[in-house]
Amino acid sequence: MATAAETAAMRQAIALAARALGATSPNPVVGCVVLDATGTVVGEGYHQRAGGPHAEVHALRAAGEKARGGTAVVTLEPCNHTGRTGPCAQALLDAGIARVVHAVPDPTPTATGGAQRLRAAGVDVEQGLLEDEARAGNIAWLTAAKSGRPYVTWKYAATLDGRIAAADRSSRWITSPESRADVHRLRAESDAVVVGSGTQCADDPHLAVRGIDGAVQPLRVVVDTDGTAVTASSRVLDDAAPTLVAVAEDATTELAAAVRLPRATDGKGLDIPALLAELHARGVRSVLLEGGPTLAGAFVAAGAVDRVVGYLAPVLLGAGPTALADAGIGTIADALRLDITETVRIGPDLRITAAPAVPAASSPKER
Amino acid sequence: MATAAETAAMRQAIALAARALGATSPNPVVGCVVLDATGTVVGEGYHQRAGGPHAEVHALRAAGEKARGGTAVVTLEPCNHTGRTGPCAQALLDAGIARVVHAVPDPTPTATGGAQRLRAAGVDVEQGLLEDEARAGNIAWLTAAKSGRPYVTWKYAATLDGRIAAADRSSRWITSPESRADVHRLRAESDAVVVGSGTQCADDPHLAVRGIDGAVQPLRVVVDTDGTAVTASSRVLDDAAPTLVAVAEDATTELAAAVRLPRATDGKGLDIPALLAELHARGVRSVLLEGGPTLAGAFVAAGAVDRVVGYLAPVLLGAGPTALADAGIGTIADALRLDITETVRIGPDLRITAAPAVPAASSPKER
Ligand SMILES: NC(=O)c1ccc[n+]([C@@H]2O[C@H](COP(=O)([O-])OP(=O)(O)OC[C@H]3O[C@@H](n4cnc5c(N)ncnc54)[C@H](OP(=O)(O)O)[C@@H]3O)[C@@H](O)[C@H]2O)c1
Ligand SMILES: NC(=O)c1ccc[n+]([C@@H]2O[C@H](COP(=O)([O-])OP(=O)(O)OC[C@H]3O[C@@H](n4cnc5c(N)ncnc54)[C@H](OP(=O)(O)O)[C@@H]3O)[C@@H](O)[C@H]2O)c1
Repeated sequence: MATAAETAAMRQAIALAARALGATSPNPVVGCVVLDATGTVVGEGYHQRAGGPHAEVHALRAAGEKARGGTAVVTLEPCNHTGRTGPCAQALLDAGIARVVHAVPDPTPTATGGAQRLRAAGVDVEQGLLEDEARAGNIAWLTAAKSGRPYVTWKYAATLDGRIAAADRSSRWITSPESRADVHRLRAESDAVVVGSGTQCADDPHLAVRGIDGAVQPLRVVVDTDGTAVTASSRVLDDAAPTLVAVAEDATTELAAAVRLPRATDGKGLDIPALLAELHARGVRSVLLEGGPTLAGAFVAAGAVDRVVGYLAPVLLGAGPTALADAGIGTIADALRLDITETVRIGPDLRITAAPAVPAASSPKER
Repeated sequence: MATAAETAAMRQAIALAARALGATSPNPVVGCVVLDATGTVVGEGYHQRAGGPHAEVHALRAAGEKARGGTAVVTLEPCNHTGRTGPCAQALLDAGIARVVHAVPDPTPTATGGAQRLRAAGVDVEQGLLEDEARAGNIAWLTAAKSGRPYVTWKYAATLDGRIAAADRSSRWITSPESRADVHRLRAESDAVVVGSGTQCADDPHLAVRGIDGAVQPLRVVVDTDGTAVTASSRVLDDAAPTLVAVAEDATTELAAAVRLPRATDGKGLDIPALLAELHARGVRSVLLEGGPTLAGAFVAAGAVDRVVGYLAPVLLGAGPTALADAGIGTIADALRLDITETVRIGPDLRITAAPAVPAASSPKER
């Protein structure tokens, strides 16, 4: 049984982990709090950047000699794997840690085994403390580890009646400055931001994070089948963030940022699973799909939306393009059913977060 | 200054008033609590039915001799008007009430003057205690008194992406049983429930209140320009509730429930202001507009929506009819801007309530 001090430490470790969302891929976010033998916090740390020290190492360094005989409280099972850094299980042993409490077991074949190694060395290991909260904090990385593709959040901004623009395509501004600032936070937490060629042509978006200190810029991705939407002067090609332009294998393009992918089997644009596999191979574990409605429909049809974040502005239009276009759903029985996980007022708007009632990744829609 | 006992009594009076929403038109809902000279509650009452005793009379009867020298706490200024019942100001004087605290002044020319009469008779009168809450509880009646037409709540049920049905028109069930039950509460609180001929033809709806004990049934209204959608076997013509079928002056219909109204000047259906005037003349002060999207668009275009209640189901469709059709809004600057006043989870769904940022009644949209 975990003590009250350990539970409080786990809560803090989860909060620490969250600070690095968007900065650690292909690694998970991890937080660690070290308690001494009396239950006093003597060290804290989190995994800040891929390639940098793991959370346990940061926390052990902060604790120094006080770690000896103490407890390490970690959001994820300590790794048993020598990557760019040494295995954390060994570091914990070297520091003289007597007990390890971790929330979530490590699902990856390469890194798993940490708990076993610690136990074998006589350390008291407990798993499962605040597991649900810790899982939620690492949902992108855990989903990607399970499904082999990045975790996809589809974000949209619409009126109460589901429009993203008026009949004449004007849309400035449907949602509030507060909502737009919140989108930058979502971007900062994501490894890649994806839009379709339609949005590219209509908006020439920048897609980089603005206004968030220390944010790691996401990879900007434009899905531009024929390589015609992105041009040398497009804003996504500036040096504010890295950029990938996904084009078809037969597209004629001279962009250095281009990556060639197969076309969709139905002939409409690029193959979404191939796009996600390419991003995964590049270390992307979380994708923010910023639209537009056509590309979002293709993602929904591919069963590749894990979370929906809708910014609803209290506005009525009665005409204009809708937030989601054809997703291959013809009848109500085939609708994508979600659970609302959160609703928050953002300035005058409402942010609704929802996730498929059954995870999209584990049940691709059959038609 | 009101005492703490008076404030508590006003809160209770507001709650009492709310019990009769939908049952008192053309009268307001009113609650009254009588305190004796020591501040103890000695009588409570509310206006239960049009034609029945006013709130003050119920409360004074309950208080009996204990009212003498006491305080009457009332949500609305006591009337000074002999209608189906005598003036409440006089009843308060007869009971020997020494002080009257009311929240909202009576805006109607016929009933106003109660406070003045009481003061003239030496009663200590205070106005404005919890005025905002009391106004909100009586918003339909107060709005109708000001604008001369019923207060209109547009209710819709849609998916997260704003659809009311799938591409094949199937919609069973988008929202949950909990949301559908909640709509019956809205109906019970309304004097009339209105649908268009499209909904009539598609759904043959019943529109009566089910599952709410003691509810006063609303007037069911079908806007059926040519008198062809409602037929002798339509469910709205059963005896569960009264029914009105609004048809054009030149429609050929033999329905006893038909009322003839002018056509809209743009040739699309009936004139909405004329419809609302007709309902107002029949004592209707609150209308629940249940759709569909075409008729709702016409109400929005007429500046005749005072409140929006949307039931959002966490479902994505990507195709199918939208919640709101043409409202004469072509560009974003003309959008109808609202303020969200409440969001509540209803089972798996989300109920969003919003009202025009500037009351619709006082600023008809100019185009
Ligand atoms: N309010 C919001 O949240 C929001 C967000 C984003 C955009 N928008 C608005 O949405 C509008 C653009 O929307 P849109 O629907 O026209 O464009 P879009 O979804 O951004 O792009 C659609 C295009 O993506 C390409 N594509 C590549 N692979 C695809 C696939 N597998 N499936 C489908 N499409 C694929 C297709 O063109 P090619 O195959 O020819 O490349 C397709 O036409 C703009 O007005 C923009 O302002 C609004
Ligand atoms: N999910 C929901 O909340 C909800 C609620 C209600 C309905 N629905 C669905 O909505 C669909 C029907 O929608 P709808 O848009 O076709 O029908 P509707 O809005 O119920 O009715 C539209 C019709 O009303 C008549 N009308 C009379 N005066 C009008 C005016 N001033 N302006 C506009 N129309 C006027 C017109 O026909 P005439 O002039 O020929 O009479 C018009 O075609 C059905 O499938 C129903 O299930 C959904």
